[in-house]
Amino acid sequence: MKVEKISELTTNRLSVYLRCLDELSNEGLRTVSSRKLATRFHLNSAQIRKDLACFGEFGVRGVGYYIEDLREQISSILGLDKNHRVGIIGAGRLGTALSNYYGFTQTNFDVVALFDSDAGKIGDKIGDVEVFDIKNFRKIAKRDRIDVAVIAVPAPYAQDVLDRVTKAGIKAVMNFAPAPLKVIEGVKLKSVDLTISLESLSYFLAQPAGSNGVD
Amino acid sequence: MKVEKISELTTNRLSVYLRCLDELSNEGLRTVSSRKLATRFHLNSAQIRKDLACFGEFGVRGVGYYIEDLREQISSILGLDKNHRVGIIGAGRLGTALSNYYGFTQTNFDVVALFDSDAGKIGDKIGDVEVFDIKNFRKIAKRDRIDVAVIAVPAPYAQDVLDRVTKAGIKAVMNFAPAPLKVIEGVKLKSVDLTISLESLSYFLAQPAGSNGVD
Repeated sequence: MKVEKISELTTNRLSVYLRCLDELSNEGLRTVSSRKLATRFHLNSAQIRKDLACFGEFGVRGVGYYIEDLREQISSILGLDKNHRVGIIGAGRLGTALSNYYGFTQTNFDVVALFDSDAGKIGDKIGDVEVFDIKNFRKIAKRDRIDVAVIAVPAPYAQDVLDRVTKAGIKAVMNFAPAPLKVIEGVKLKSVDLTISLESLSYFLAQPAGSNGVD
Repeated sequence: MKVEKISELTTNRLSVYLRCLDELSNEGLRTVSSRKLATRFHLNSAQIRKDLACFGEFGVRGVGYYIEDLREQISSILGLDKNHRVGIIGAGRLGTALSNYYGFTQTNFDVVALFDSDAGKIGDKIGDVEVFDIKNFRKIAKRDRIDVAVIAVPAPYAQDVLDRVTKAGIKAVMNFAPAPLKVIEGVKLKSVDLTISLESLSYFLAQPAGSNGVD
């Protein structure tokens, strides 16, 4: 397998392909061509072939892709064969919702701890997950081998939280606070800013009907 | 203002600029240059100028941008001066968390109704927001002038929900279910697939340390 750096847009597409392959596999299919994959899920078949070619030759002439093989390969490329342990900072509605979000359980991420600064929440349990004092983040992260942090605090607190978790050695952070954050080198910050998604809907709705073919 | 179609990547960047301008405005600043904006928030100054040039000449030579003017202009481009009314389908943890997510209140979206198929939830109130039977979506959407739907149901139900809301005339949909959905023309579907974001973190963590400069 080539070890070239690939862009995040490519890894995002690999995630989508994986989801599609899961669906085909559930339906009992064993092989699929890039063309059928594209038609079925409204994807681009040339793009599929190009993306997969980055990682080696997966397709078989006249057959297409073996679905199980391709699922395993993509899972391995995305590192989904390794488990990660997640600490969520912010035990409000969003943080607690995320703590048992089916998206986590579907992937290789286990939520193992919640953190908050509110004394009224510390010690609570959300399902099986305990809420700890954010002041003890470093200690708990080490003890529970947390390697991914999820920031689910209001925007004004997000940078402080990010600084705290990166100082504790966390290298991968997912941020839900609608705030521009600065992150040190060597740390991957993935922001999920729902306001940006909402505003793209707002833009769409603001266009005259019929002219809104964006994206 | 030019009425060219602009890409979603551009509108996403406009949303980010708006967030940055909000912060500068809160600090009491009145003007900012594209260079300062870029340096402060780790953006690209040439890209800022290019994006804003799509909509007219906002900058003033030797001054930069007037922050309040630019905020108003971007808000207007994004349609943030018009209010939208949101119905959330799925009154589970994610749906109820979204119903009072601060991101909504920060933008021009009001959550006015939740919907579920679980008889045990119908009639409940989450804050001020009532949970209705999904079977009555069309009726309630019309009565409450809902123009945006948010899908927060498990993946296997998402396509049915999408079909139902688009049949009821909804033109803008935000989807949180990790499933590839097919949408009819003239409807904007914005998927927020957290598993894709998680998998991009997973990919990052799977790379040898030091080689992971993706994104």
